Amino acid sequence: MTKDAEFSWPVRVYWEDTDAGGVVFYANYLKFFERARTEWLRLWGPSQEALRHAGTGMFVVTDTQMRYRQPAVLDDALTITVDLVELGRASMQFRQQAWRGEVLLCEGSIRIGWVQRTADGSLRPGRMPPEVTARLPAVKTAAQ
Amino acid sequence: MTKDAEFSWPVRVYWEDTDAGGVVFYANYLKFFERARTEWLRLWGPSQEALRHAGTGMFVVTDTQMRYRQPAVLDDALTITVDLVELGRASMQFRQQAWRGEVLLCEGSIRIGWVQRTADGSLRPGRMPPEVTARLPAVKTAAQ
Amino acid sequence: MTKDAEFSWPVRVYWEDTDAGGVVFYANYLKFFERARTEWLRLWGPSQEALRHAGTGMFVVTDTQMRYRQPAVLDDALTITVDLVELGRASMQFRQQAWRGEVLLCEGSIRIGWVQRTADGSLRPGRMPPEVTARLPAVKTAAQ
Amino acid sequence: MTKDAEFSWPVRVYWEDTDAGGVVFYANYLKFFERARTEWLRLWGPSQEALRHAGTGMFVVTDTQMRYRQPAVLDDALTITVDLVELGRASMQFRQQAWRGEVLLCEGSIRIGWVQRTADGSLRPGRMPPEVTARLPAVKTAAQ
Repeated sequence: MTKDAEFSWPVRVYWEDTDAGGVVFYANYLKFFERARTEWLRLWGPSQEALRHAGTGMFVVTDTQMRYRQPAVLDDALTITVDLVELGRASMQFRQQAWRGEVLLCEGSIRIGWVQRTADGSLRPGRMPPEVTARLPAVKTAAQ
Repeated sequence: MTKDAEFSWPVRVYWEDTDAGGVVFYANYLKFFERARTEWLRLWGPSQEALRHAGTGMFVVTDTQMRYRQPAVLDDALTITVDLVELGRASMQFRQQAWRGEVLLCEGSIRIGWVQRTADGSLRPGRMPPEVTARLPAVKTAAQ
Repeated sequence: MTKDAEFSWPVRVYWEDTDAGGVVFYANYLKFFERARTEWLRLWGPSQEALRHAGTGMFVVTDTQMRYRQPAVLDDALTITVDLVELGRASMQFRQQAWRGEVLLCEGSIRIGWVQRTADGSLRPGRMPPEVTARLPAVKTAAQ
Repeated sequence: MTKDAEFSWPVRVYWEDTDAGGVVFYANYLKFFERARTEWLRLWGPSQEALRHAGTGMFVVTDTQMRYRQPAVLDDALTITVDLVELGRASMQFRQQAWRGEVLLCEGSIRIGWVQRTADGSLRPGRMPPEVTARLPAVKTAAQ
């Protein structure tokens, strides 16, 4: 396991991220991972807010698997990595990690799907539009 | 200062509410206060989700003043009070408190205004619709 | 798949729980699940705050697997279920679900481990103390 | 009103920050303001985590006044300003603002006090230690 990820993003730990155990509240790593995925997506296509406003659709998280190894504490400077490991027509899967220096704190697998709002206001899975997928980087295979 | 408020709502403190200081993170009292205001509103009129879906408009918080007196900790059972202290055509002001038994932990003044979505998607202040205000209880004056 | 869980706990969706997609932000189901586990634990032993203060140790979440099926929206009244599916000496695993009426919205598997604070302030996994485990209910097997 | 503040810090709006109104949830500006104050404090003295671990004490927020003028939305790049406007022996007051370009979205006044943990575990207000205050910049007066 290494830090040679396709993309990484810095995250600082503030009071808002911690809990009474003196460490980062585990659910907040999902927020950290999403910040990094959002910046990764921003590199390759239109902003999510632009897509949402255009009524094109939006991404939703459909599956998460998280493993918590070591705690982070207040003021820690973390590095969040992003690797696209699967690209389908209606969904993408990412492998992500949180590091403090050379220490792996948390890792996870996140699947996001594309949904469109139907006439009755509900959300329906759909194919990702070309402006989202056209410029995405290659999928990272396990062998890489 | 007393607990003889117009309305009160119980809130339990969970891990998600605390920070590394071992106490409830101060910003979360705004959430506790809003839960209580939401339940207060539910007593008197249509649900906020129904209004939002009907495109009628929605409430937004415009001003908050909060004073933090004593900390709450994990597992505390709190009581949140709600008193309507001012009712205008486009806004309402509330006085709210958080208690643990007979100990006042936090108090605040919250102003909410009514907004409608305009054709271009922005939010514009407007008069609260009758279905929201018709059944509201009387305003609590300072003398009460 | 059924709702005949060992334990369930009601959760109401407030503004704080939603995101700009108009639905509950996915990370918040981890909070909902934890509220229900906390109430489940409260039934069977000492409070987590009491254990934390006594310096006995505390629970930490070590693994989560979440699957998001249908969105919840503002004002929804959810039911969160809790089933203990594995009980070890140093950890427990739960299966949990979020329902709105008869609709399953989200389900997950959560593993929590017991840690003790060492002399240098770090957290070390350890055996759960008897006052935590003595009164726990039987593990729910797949066949049940 | 101007943006010529003593210090400013960038904040990006992510999904986690928004609510079903399609805008940033108002309580989250308190988090944005705290991130900026934390970075301001980091410039002038020891880290808050170092102080907390040394048992020296910690800052707590005692009063907040917030005014919400315009909403921020997903993907907005905000600038948070920090001005120290009062420095006492046991507390400090800050004036803070959130801007999107030349648009003022939110402003507030935040008071933080210094507390020390007593033998029984409770928090007692105290004088800020020299290592915290020695290097702080001059207070900004209204005339500046």
